[in-house]
Amino acid sequence: MKKLWLEHFFDSIADKGMNILEKLHKKHSYKDILALCQMLLSSKGEATGIALSRKLCLSYKRLDTKGRINFFDILANKLSSNPETIKLASDKYFKSGSDDDLALLNAAVESPRQNLFRLINMAPGGTVTLVAMRADLLKFISQHPNFKAIDADFKHLFRSWFNPGFLKLRIIDWNAPATVIEKLIDNEKVHKMSGWEDMKKRLSPDRKCFAFFHPALPYEPLIFVVVALVRGISTKISPLLDKNREIIDPNTADTAILYTINNAQPGLSGLSFGNFLIKQVLFELKVGFPKLKVFSTLSPMPNFTRTIQAAIDNKHSEFTYERLQALLGDYRNVLSKATGTENAVDALNELLKKDISKHKTILSKPLECLSLAYLALLSPNGKHFDRVANFHLSNGARIEKINSFADISTNRMQQSYGFMVNYLYEPDDIVKNHESFINNDKIAMSKHLLRHYNKIASVWKTA
Amino acid sequence: MKKLWLEHFFDSIADKGMNILEKLHKKHSYKDILALCQMLLSSKGEATGIALSRKLCLSYKRLDTKGRINFFDILANKLSSNPETIKLASDKYFKSGSDDDLALLNAAVESPRQNLFRLINMAPGGTVTLVAMRADLLKFISQHPNFKAIDADFKHLFRSWFNPGFLKLRIIDWNAPATVIEKLIDNEKVHKMSGWEDMKKRLSPDRKCFAFFHPALPYEPLIFVVVALVRGISTKISPLLDKNREIIDPNTADTAILYTINNAQPGLSGLSFGNFLIKQVLFELKVGFPKLKVFSTLSPMPNFTRTIQAAIDNKHSEFTYERLQALLGDYRNVLSKATGTENAVDALNELLKKDISKHKTILSKPLECLSLAYLALLSPNGKHFDRVANFHLSNGARIEKINSFADISTNRMQQSYGFMVNYLYEPDDIVKNHESFINNDKIAMSKHLLRHYNKIASVWKTA
Amino acid sequence: MKKLWLEHFFDSIADKGMNILEKLHKKHSYKDILALCQMLLSSKGEATGIALSRKLCLSYKRLDTKGRINFFDILANKLSSNPETIKLASDKYFKSGSDDDLALLNAAVESPRQNLFRLINMAPGGTVTLVAMRADLLKFISQHPNFKAIDADFKHLFRSWFNPGFLKLRIIDWNAPATVIEKLIDNEKVHKMSGWEDMKKRLSPDRKCFAFFHPALPYEPLIFVVVALVRGISTKISPLLDKNREIIDPNTADTAILYTINNAQPGLSGLSFGNFLIKQVLFELKVGFPKLKVFSTLSPMPNFTRTIQAAIDNKHSEFTYERLQALLGDYRNVLSKATGTENAVDALNELLKKDISKHKTILSKPLECLSLAYLALLSPNGKHFDRVANFHLSNGARIEKINSFADISTNRMQQSYGFMVNYLYEPDDIVKNHESFINNDKIAMSKHLLRHYNKIASVWKTA
Amino acid sequence: MKKLWLEHFFDSIADKGMNILEKLHKKHSYKDILALCQMLLSSKGEATGIALSRKLCLSYKRLDTKGRINFFDILANKLSSNPETIKLASDKYFKSGSDDDLALLNAAVESPRQNLFRLINMAPGGTVTLVAMRADLLKFISQHPNFKAIDADFKHLFRSWFNPGFLKLRIIDWNAPATVIEKLIDNEKVHKMSGWEDMKKRLSPDRKCFAFFHPALPYEPLIFVVVALVRGISTKISPLLDKNREIIDPNTADTAILYTINNAQPGLSGLSFGNFLIKQVLFELKVGFPKLKVFSTLSPMPNFTRTIQAAIDNKHSEFTYERLQALLGDYRNVLSKATGTENAVDALNELLKKDISKHKTILSKPLECLSLAYLALLSPNGKHFDRVANFHLSNGARIEKINSFADISTNRMQQSYGFMVNYLYEPDDIVKNHESFINNDKIAMSKHLLRHYNKIASVWKTA
Repeated sequence: MKKLWLEHFFDSIADKGMNILEKLHKKHSYKDILALCQMLLSSKGEATGIALSRKLCLSYKRLDTKGRINFFDILANKLSSNPETIKLASDKYFKSGSDDDLALLNAAVESPRQNLFRLINMAPGGTVTLVAMRADLLKFISQHPNFKAIDADFKHLFRSWFNPGFLKLRIIDWNAPATVIEKLIDNEKVHKMSGWEDMKKRLSPDRKCFAFFHPALPYEPLIFVVVALVRGISTKISPLLDKNREIIDPNTADTAILYTINNAQPGLSGLSFGNFLIKQVLFELKVGFPKLKVFSTLSPMPNFTRTIQAAIDNKHSEFTYERLQALLGDYRNVLSKATGTENAVDALNELLKKDISKHKTILSKPLECLSLAYLALLSPNGKHFDRVANFHLSNGARIEKINSFADISTNRMQQSYGFMVNYLYEPDDIVKNHESFINNDKIAMSKHLLRHYNKIASVWKTA
Repeated sequence: MKKLWLEHFFDSIADKGMNILEKLHKKHSYKDILALCQMLLSSKGEATGIALSRKLCLSYKRLDTKGRINFFDILANKLSSNPETIKLASDKYFKSGSDDDLALLNAAVESPRQNLFRLINMAPGGTVTLVAMRADLLKFISQHPNFKAIDADFKHLFRSWFNPGFLKLRIIDWNAPATVIEKLIDNEKVHKMSGWEDMKKRLSPDRKCFAFFHPALPYEPLIFVVVALVRGISTKISPLLDKNREIIDPNTADTAILYTINNAQPGLSGLSFGNFLIKQVLFELKVGFPKLKVFSTLSPMPNFTRTIQAAIDNKHSEFTYERLQALLGDYRNVLSKATGTENAVDALNELLKKDISKHKTILSKPLECLSLAYLALLSPNGKHFDRVANFHLSNGARIEKINSFADISTNRMQQSYGFMVNYLYEPDDIVKNHESFINNDKIAMSKHLLRHYNKIASVWKTA
Repeated sequence: MKKLWLEHFFDSIADKGMNILEKLHKKHSYKDILALCQMLLSSKGEATGIALSRKLCLSYKRLDTKGRINFFDILANKLSSNPETIKLASDKYFKSGSDDDLALLNAAVESPRQNLFRLINMAPGGTVTLVAMRADLLKFISQHPNFKAIDADFKHLFRSWFNPGFLKLRIIDWNAPATVIEKLIDNEKVHKMSGWEDMKKRLSPDRKCFAFFHPALPYEPLIFVVVALVRGISTKISPLLDKNREIIDPNTADTAILYTINNAQPGLSGLSFGNFLIKQVLFELKVGFPKLKVFSTLSPMPNFTRTIQAAIDNKHSEFTYERLQALLGDYRNVLSKATGTENAVDALNELLKKDISKHKTILSKPLECLSLAYLALLSPNGKHFDRVANFHLSNGARIEKINSFADISTNRMQQSYGFMVNYLYEPDDIVKNHESFINNDKIAMSKHLLRHYNKIASVWKTA
Repeated sequence: MKKLWLEHFFDSIADKGMNILEKLHKKHSYKDILALCQMLLSSKGEATGIALSRKLCLSYKRLDTKGRINFFDILANKLSSNPETIKLASDKYFKSGSDDDLALLNAAVESPRQNLFRLINMAPGGTVTLVAMRADLLKFISQHPNFKAIDADFKHLFRSWFNPGFLKLRIIDWNAPATVIEKLIDNEKVHKMSGWEDMKKRLSPDRKCFAFFHPALPYEPLIFVVVALVRGISTKISPLLDKNREIIDPNTADTAILYTINNAQPGLSGLSFGNFLIKQVLFELKVGFPKLKVFSTLSPMPNFTRTIQAAIDNKHSEFTYERLQALLGDYRNVLSKATGTENAVDALNELLKKDISKHKTILSKPLECLSLAYLALLSPNGKHFDRVANFHLSNGARIEKINSFADISTNRMQQSYGFMVNYLYEPDDIVKNHESFINNDKIAMSKHLLRHYNKIASVWKTA
C-alpha cells in the first residue's frame, strides 16, 4: 500500500505547489501545457518541480492525438536551443579556447527539451511517461519532419538511461507477473498468438523466454526472445507453435532454437539491446542446459519477396534483372517445362503469381538459390541488405540453412514465399565471425551453403 | 552462484576478443591504457566492447596514484573535443540553421570522454568503477585544474544516470546487508562512531535510518539520514549518541530529530540528493508514526567560528567589525567585567582564546546573538552563507532554536564553539517557506527568534 | 535455472539409490506403490529417503482414479496403527505411569501414515503433492468411509504445517505471478468469471484482493478475499461485477465491500484460515485507506431456498410449518390477492414456483421477513444454521441489511431467491460481537433489523 | 514500516481482548502465567487467542530464570495428558476397535502442551519464542528430569514445522543481513572468531558459507557450514583461519574443505539438518565450481584424548588396556627410548603428560595408529563411537587422512592432542558408502588407511 502513500504525497505537494504558483504567477492562464513546461524549466524549487512534473505527466496522458501533436509542436518550436545563444557562446569559445567556455557552448547547444525530459523523469512514473511520449512521437514523425530533433533528444537521454550496463536479464515463465506476460502477448509480432492459453503453452518447460529489464521499471520488459529446446535443428515453424505438441523434458534437448525476438517498448525502438540479449541468453542456456550442442534461430527474411519482385521488374539496383536471369540458369528447364514459358524469369514470375503451395516442388530449388543470393550477395552495408541477417551476422552467427516453405502462414508467404533461415551461433566462432563481418564484410556460412555460394558468386559478378 | 557464470562469461569473451584484437592490431603495444581507450572508442563490435571495458576497469584498479593521474591527463589531453571539428560543425550550422547540422554540432561539442564513460558503464561493475574514478579525480582536481573538464563530463552523465526519478528510498536497520552497514559506518562524518556495536545501537528501534539507492547498485547507499525518535525536541547531541541510553518505544515518541545526514559516495558529491531524501523521509515518518508532531534537525554551523574570527580580525566583507561591535552592545558589561577589557570585541576574543567551557555562562548569550546574525543576516545568496542553513532553508525548514554548547566534542567546539541549530520542518509550511526563501530571500524562523532577529536586524543595517 | 540443478540432483541420487536398493532387496518386485511406502518407512538413510519420496510423488501423479483409490486402500489397511502394539504400550503405561511409557504409547497410537507423509514432504514438491492427495481423498471419502482415518492424519499434519503463525498476507494485483492469478480464476466459486480479461477488471485499482500464502509455497494462494472499494454500501451484486463499470479513485471510497471469499486449495478444506484473513484484511484496509468508514460484505445465504421449501413441505424440525404460517401473517392479504389462494403458505409456494422475477414487489417483504428468521432465529449451534452467517458472526460482524433480489443470477435465485446479506464489521465492536456470539449465542444486528427481529422473535416462540 | 502496523494491530486486539476477558473472567487474578495458558487453551475465539498468545510470549520474555523454571514446572505438572482420560479412551477403543475411538485415544494421549505450543505459534514472533523456550528448557533439563516430557512435545512439533522439505539453502556472503552474520559470529563454536573483521575475512570470495533457513524465519540461520576453496587438500587448520592469508581466485581452486559446521539455534538441537545441508552444499559446489575435484572436511575428534586416557587407565570397555598395549607394539622401542620407561603404555602416558609439542616427532606415529583405531575399530553403533565420524560416515564420506598436530589451539590439544581428520566425499561413492555403513557397519577409508587398518584390525581382535 506504500505506493498509495507516495501518490498522496505527490498529490498534496502538487496541490500546495499549485496554489502558491497560481498566486505567484497570476498572469498565467494555465490553459496550455506550454505554461507548465516553462514553469517547470524555470522552477528553482524541487518541491514544486516534482509536483509540476507529475501534473505534466497527467496532462499529457489526457491529451488526444491532436493535443499531443500540438504538444510536440511546442517542444519543437519553443524549446529548441537558441541560435543566438549558440552564436554568442561559440564566438566566446573560439576566442578563449577555454574549458569553461566550451562547457558554456555545450550548454547552449543542448536543447532545453533535454532538461525538461530530465525534470519530467523525476515524477513518479516519469520514465514510463517519457517512453510512451516517444512511442507517440514516432507515429507522428513521418508527417512532421521537424519532430526529428525531439526524437534525437529522446534518444540521447534514453541511450544514457538504458545503458546496457544497467539492464538485467530475467527468465520469464508462468510464475512471472501477469503485467509482464500481458506485455509479451501484446508485443509478440513475429509469430502472433491467440491469448493467455497460447502464451502458457509457449512458456512450457521446454521453452525458455528471456527478457531485459531496467531495474527502475520492474514490470516493463524491454526486449524478449523465446527459445525452443528441441531435438535436432528446427526447419519448420509449425511444430514449434503447435498448441497440441508434446512437451519434452528440456534436459533431453540437444538444440536451442531462438525462434522469435521482439522489442516490447515501441518508445525504445532504435536502441539496440538485441545483441546484448542474444549473447547473455546463449551463455545462460549453455550453463543451464549443458547437453545443448546447437544454438540456432529460425528467422524470417523480411524483404525477400519484395527484392525478387523488384529484380523481376528490373527495378533493383543490386539484384539486377541480368543477375536474376543468370542465377536461374540451372533451373530454366524445370521452370519452362512447368509453365510453357521459355524465359526463366517470366516462368518464375508466372508461378509466383499462382498458388505457390501447388508448385512447391518446382519452386523450391530456384528460390533457395535466389534466397542465398539475397542473403549473401547484396552489399552487407547497402540499404537492401536483410535487416534480420544483418542483426545475426553482426552478432557473430553464420547462415546455416535456408528452409523452403518453413512457415506457410499468409504473412510469411507474402514476405518471403514462406522461406526461413537458420542462423547458427557456434560459441567458439562468435567473436571471429563478428569481426570478419564488421571489418571485412565477410559473411560466415555452413560448408554446404559455402559450396553453393562460391558457385553463384561468380555468376553474380559476371552477370 | 550466477554471478560467477557471468564473470566467467566476460572473461572468456574478453580473452577471445583480446586474441583477435592482438592479431588485428599488431602495431598496438598494449602498454598503455590509452590504447585500450582508443580501441574501445573505435570498436565497432559490442562483443569486444564489453571485454575491453572490463579490461579497462581492471587496469584502472591496478593503477597507483601516479598512474591514475597519468590516466586523467590522457583523458584531459587526448579525449577532449576537437576545436577544429567544432569550428567546422558550427560554421556548417550557422550557414544552414538545420536541425541535422545542430545535431552534428552537438556531437562535435561533446567530448569523446563521455562516450568512453558510457562504454565503460557496460562492463560488469562499470558504474561502480566510474563513481570510484570520479572520487579519485576530485582528490587531484585542486592540483590539476585541467581535470575540471573531465569532472564536468562525469557530472553530466551522473546527473542523467542518478536522476532522482530512479532512486529508491530504503530503511536501513540491523537486517540490512552487512556491506551496506559497513559503508554507513565508514561514511558517518558528522558524528563519527567506533564500530559495529556502536552502529547497532544507532539502529535500535527508536532510530530510523533512511538511504537512497540506485536500483542498479543494490549495495551502494548514495546518501543517508539518521532520525532519532524522541520525546520533546533535542537540544544537545550527547543524549542521542550515548551508548548506554535507554531505548524507548518509538510509538511513544512525539518528535523526530534528523541528527545526521551524509553522502556515502564521494564520487557523487555535488549531485544534490539531499532535498529529495528529506522530503520523502518526512513523509514516511508522518505515515509510519502518526503520533509524531515535530520534525526537526540538530545541525552544525560549519563556518561559525571562522566567520566570527574574521569579524574580530576585521577581515569579513559582510560581518564587519562595526557590525560585530554593535551586536555585542548589550553584552559589553558582562564581557568587560569577566575580562577586565573594555572593548567588547577584544573581551570576547580574549574569552574565546581561553578554555571556553569555563566561561559558558558568560559566552552563551552573546554567542547566541552572533549566531543568529550569522544564520539570518548574511546574504542568503552570498558566498559566506552557511551551507547547512542554505540546505534546510531551501528545503522549506525554519530556524527554530539555537542551542549553546549543544555538542562539546573537540571538532564541534572548533567549528562553532559547540553551538548547534534546530531546523524545524512544519509540513504545512514547507512549500511556503521554500518559495519565500528561493524567490524573496526570506528566512523563516520561530516567533521567539523572530523577535530577537527584528531587534538585531536594525542594528546590523545601521552599523 | 537453479531448479534444474536440484531436479538433476534428486534424479541422480534417486537413480543411485534405486540401483542399490534393487540389489539389496531383490525380492521386491517394485510393482506396487506399497513397496515404495514400506521402503521409505524402513529406510535408514536420508539419501535414499528423498529419492524414494520423489519416486513416490511421481508414481502417485501417474496413477488414475482407480489406482489412487487402491493407494488409499493400502494406506487405510496396511499403514494404520497396530491394535496389538497399542495394547502392549497402553498396558505398559498403565503399569508404570512413566513419561517414557507415555511417549511410547503416543508413538504406538500415531499411525505410520503420518510418518510416511512427513517423509514424502521432504521430496521437492512434496507439500504440493500431499495437498493434492488430500484433495483426491476428499472426493472418494463419501464412498469409502474407511478413508476417514487417513483424512484425520492429513488434517493433523496440515494443522501443524499451516499454523496461522506461518501464513503471510499478500495483496494480489495485476503484477502478481500469472500462476497465482490463474489459480484465483479457477477457484472463484462465489461469483464465477469468464477469464483473464474479467479477472483483470476485478483487480482494477478500486478492487483489493488479499490472499494467504505459506512461505514454502510461494505460488499457492491458500484462501483469498476480494474487496470492492465503493461509495455507499453495496446492496446489489451486478454493479460490482459489471465489466463496463467505471473505475473510481480508491481514495474517494468510503466503503469496503468484501464481496467474495474462497478457498483456493481443495486439499486444505476444513482448515479455518478465513477468520485470520478477514481480521488482517480489515486492518490493512483501515491503515491503507483511512477514509474508509464502512466495512461490509455482500454475502449469499446458501440454504435459504432449501429451508423455506422444507418449511412449506412441513419437513423442517426448527423452521416448522406453524412458524412459517405465523411469520407470513402480515403478508397474507397481499399474497392471497396476488394468487387467489387464501392460505398464505400455499400462496407463497405458488408464487415461488412461478417466475419469481415477475412478482418481486409482492415477494420482497415476506421473503425479507423469512430470511431474517432464517438468519437469526434458527439455533446458532444447530445444524441448520447458515454457514456464511456463522462464519461472519463468529468473526465479530453484525447482520446489517438483507437485500431482496440483490443477485439475480440463476445460481443465486436457486439458492436464496436472489437475496443477499450485508454483514458489517464495525472495528470497535468486533471483539464484543464475537464474544457474545460464541459465549451467549447472541446475534448482533443493525438497529433497523433489531426492531423487526424483536417483533418476529415473539411470533417464532409462540408459534 | 508495515511491521509497525501489524504490531499496532495485535496490540489493539490484545487490549480489547484483555478488557473483555477481564470482564468475563473476573475471578482470574492474572497473577500467574498459568492463567494465561489455561485461558488460551479454553479460548473459543481466535481474536482473543492471538492476543493471549502474544501476551504469553511477552510475559515469558520478562521472566527470570526462576520464573522460567516455574513456568516449565506448570507445563510439566498441569498440562500433561490425563491418565484417567487416557484410560477411558483406551478402554473404549479396545472395545470398539473403531477409527473414531482410535482418534479419541490419539487426542487423549497427546498432551495439552502441544496444543498450547500450536496456539503460541500464532502470535507474531511465536515461532522464535518457542525455539527460545526450548533453548532454555534444555539448560534446565539435567536438573529437572520431569521436563523431558515437555522436550518431547517441543521436538514432536519442531520436527513437523522444520521438516527438511520446508528448508531453504542460502549462501551467506558479506551482502547478507547483519542480523544473520551476527548470529554466525555468535554461534561459530568449532573455530571461534574475534569479531566482524575476522568474519569478513572468513566470507572472502574463496570461502563459501551456506546456511539453512525456514521460510517463516528469514533472519534465523538454523545450521551453517563454511567451505574453504583451496588448492590441494588442507591438512592444517591455521592456514585456513589466518587473517593475513592471501585470498585466491575461487575458480582456480581444486579442493573444497568443509572446515566448520555449526548449529545456530540451540533451541533446535537434536533435529538433524546436517546431512541434508552437506548433500545440498556438495551439489551446489559441484555445479558452481566445476573445477573442484576434491570435497573434504578437516574435522575434530571430540573424544580422542578422553578415550586414550581411559584406555591407559584401563577404564574403557572397548578400547581395553590390552588392545592399547598391542597397538603400541610397533612403537615400543621409540617410546621407551624417549622416556626410559619400558612399558609402552606408561611411556606414552608420560609423554602425553608433558608438553606434547616438544615430542611431536616421537608421538606422531603412535597417536596416528591409535586414532585410526579410535575412528575405525570401536563399534560404529556403540556409545563410544566418535560423533563427528558417525555424522560424516553416515552421510557417505570416507576417512581419507589423519593429520597429526593439525590444530594446535589449546582447545583442540585437549580434545585430541591436536589431531584432525579429513573425511572425503567422493560424489560417486556417497550412496554406496552410506548404505554400507548403515546396513553393514562398514567404514569406508582411503587405500592408504585401509592397509594400516587391516594390520591393526587383526591386532585389535586378538588382543
